[in-house]
Amino acid sequence: MIKNLTNVRGITCWGAHTGVKSMRRDLALIYSEVPASAAATFTKNQVVAEPIKLSRKNIANGKAQAIVINAGNANACTGEQGRQGAEAMVKTTAEELGIDEGLVLVASTGLIGEPFPTDDVVDGIKENIGKLSNKSNAGSFAANAILTTDTFAKEGFLEFDVDGIEVNMAGIAKGSGMIHPNMGTMLAFIVCDVAISPKLLDKTVKAAVDKSFNMITVDGDTSTNDMVAVLCNGMAKNPELTSTKDPGYNTFKAKLEEIMIHLAQTIVSDGEGCSKFVRYEVVNAPDEVMGRKLIREISSSTLVKTAMFGRDPNWGRIMCAAGNAGVPFDFEKTDLYLGSDKELVKMLEKGKPQDFDRNNMKRILRQSQLHIKMDLNSGKHRAEGWGSDLTTDYVMFNSVYTT
Amino acid sequence: MIKNLTNVRGITCWGAHTGVKSMRRDLALIYSEVPASAAATFTKNQVVAEPIKLSRKNIANGKAQAIVINAGNANACTGEQGRQGAEAMVKTTAEELGIDEGLVLVASTGLIGEPFPTDDVVDGIKENIGKLSNKSNAGSFAANAILTTDTFAKEGFLEFDVDGIEVNMAGIAKGSGMIHPNMGTMLAFIVCDVAISPKLLDKTVKAAVDKSFNMITVDGDTSTNDMVAVLCNGMAKNPELTSTKDPGYNTFKAKLEEIMIHLAQTIVSDGEGCSKFVRYEVVNAPDEVMGRKLIREISSSTLVKTAMFGRDPNWGRIMCAAGNAGVPFDFEKTDLYLGSDKELVKMLEKGKPQDFDRNNMKRILRQSQLHIKMDLNSGKHRAEGWGSDLTTDYVMFNSVYTT
Repeated sequence: MIKNLTNVRGITCWGAHTGVKSMRRDLALIYSEVPASAAATFTKNQVVAEPIKLSRKNIANGKAQAIVINAGNANACTGEQGRQGAEAMVKTTAEELGIDEGLVLVASTGLIGEPFPTDDVVDGIKENIGKLSNKSNAGSFAANAILTTDTFAKEGFLEFDVDGIEVNMAGIAKGSGMIHPNMGTMLAFIVCDVAISPKLLDKTVKAAVDKSFNMITVDGDTSTNDMVAVLCNGMAKNPELTSTKDPGYNTFKAKLEEIMIHLAQTIVSDGEGCSKFVRYEVVNAPDEVMGRKLIREISSSTLVKTAMFGRDPNWGRIMCAAGNAGVPFDFEKTDLYLGSDKELVKMLEKGKPQDFDRNNMKRILRQSQLHIKMDLNSGKHRAEGWGSDLTTDYVMFNSVYTT
Repeated sequence: MIKNLTNVRGITCWGAHTGVKSMRRDLALIYSEVPASAAATFTKNQVVAEPIKLSRKNIANGKAQAIVINAGNANACTGEQGRQGAEAMVKTTAEELGIDEGLVLVASTGLIGEPFPTDDVVDGIKENIGKLSNKSNAGSFAANAILTTDTFAKEGFLEFDVDGIEVNMAGIAKGSGMIHPNMGTMLAFIVCDVAISPKLLDKTVKAAVDKSFNMITVDGDTSTNDMVAVLCNGMAKNPELTSTKDPGYNTFKAKLEEIMIHLAQTIVSDGEGCSKFVRYEVVNAPDEVMGRKLIREISSSTLVKTAMFGRDPNWGRIMCAAGNAGVPFDFEKTDLYLGSDKELVKMLEKGKPQDFDRNNMKRILRQSQLHIKMDLNSGKHRAEGWGSDLTTDYVMFNSVYTT
């Protein structure tokens, strides 16, 4: 038996099939016995789905107790009818649970611009709220009920000590099903029984998202529905974390990053039609933000991605993409490595092309886990990110999505 | 017989095969009998090819008399050896023509990071400079000698009156051979016999590039070698244009935009493996820059491009891409149209999805020239841009480029 959401103290959940999607579960509920400190990050897209607008409002006070998520319909570009649908989801969930509406977060994923099936979803909530459970299968049902084109459920669980107290943390995510979050919705929900103030949680969540989910994202390229929410209900009964200097805070921070990076990586590894998982690393950078920008530009270059698909050690494309990142770096100081974690081949040393065995390189690039590393030799900071290749299968799949 | 570069007064040119490329012409020379007012725009990439560095320096005084271009080797990421190669191209051209080195512009296109074949190129210049000619075939040779993966030569010619004087303008370009300039080098060279001051020319060229070549470009995403240069040698003997208020200036400005848009469109229509030409239009925007940003974001979205390939009227992807452009616009005021110039179907009215005949839409999208139009209903400005679809052929081609 695996540990999941249901192994966090006070958390129950469920995943049901309401009929919005033809075959798979399409409604997830996550509930905390007590109100939890809550923090979230939302899409930066100018076009924002109705549930996002409502969740943004409800989380403003730093507290939440329930999350309701539907799949199959994004409730985006749906206007007044969609707004009412999202409100009905929140209202029904709050009423059925007997909690305040302001403690309910709501999320949606699926097709954009279709009328929202409010009745089906509301009926589904009423029928299933009584099934909320702390049994392991309930966690699996919830993890499966938020998927769209994903080929597998994405879950994570960690247990660790905070100031001598055992703490449990669990999360579920859905990928874009595609390579970048701008190509579909990215959702992640993490629950933890640590006691932490809403303010400190908010700061910690934003920093961890920057190192994880945002490193599989082209900066600013987000779908209408993206959302990452973290609920910490304090039922571990540790002395509440309120400052970054509190004992155990650094452990909590590291574990939150760990679970987010794990979920982010599983999203990339489930990219539609992708055949490679590529780890990008920038080392010895003047600062971390610059390293991240370089990685986002390189990992989102269609030319770099097609080269990885074709096992082509075309390092010129990598440097060209880096040059487009809008950050100053000194090409004449840069070393570039390409290969896998075990066999990393130096392609450039201080900007100078190195001889390499082309046949050996093609052999290395045949592997499914690749590694691209750039050493800027101009500082002490590093950044890491993850991406996939761009394949003919990807194009085929996405050319006929609604048809 | 077509009119081309050689129909501009005082212009001679040539295109030769030096052996850097195995089969096709790979060295172009353009020469003006007298020094010309000159202006250029260059790549914004941080990694800059050696010829770009040199041309930037040589054009600083607003004058040029010759352009020398090699294809097959980009002379980028080539270090000191490449720097010397670019300098040798300029020096040899200047010596053979008996002009000042500062009057020579140099450009390169081809593979990045390969040692620069200086001897072949320098010998080629020496052998061919005597062949500079004002015969029509010389213009065609030059247009062909700057190509890489392009499938056809890109040329334009216009004649018009400036303040009662007949003026001739001609241009050649090479495409990335791909969909965005970040995926390969974009070069364009335009010559005109109008008399215009360097300062006014510079201003006019920058504005025209923003409306043409930059509208097939993702902002800031440019290759290491991109360059657009315009030489106006004054041999039409019109009173020199020095102010935007001078008689005939507006005609010159309009014609420069026209030839640049023509060349930019031919570049898009020669996109590798692309099956559609898509015209993007934003109307009734608060300002033109905002319209351009929206177009650049939409036209570079892989999801929009794969949908066009698959004839999928997936307007949600268009709005999602628009939302990522980083500009504020009111979705609830936006109308969206999709189709062809002749049959444009309203998909959204004031943010509200419209019913449409899906089968009819699929029929329309089978055409090779598509049109996407967004009406923001919040201003009086418009912008236009051009792009292509993303096909399985594109991925196949680019996955094996150097191998």
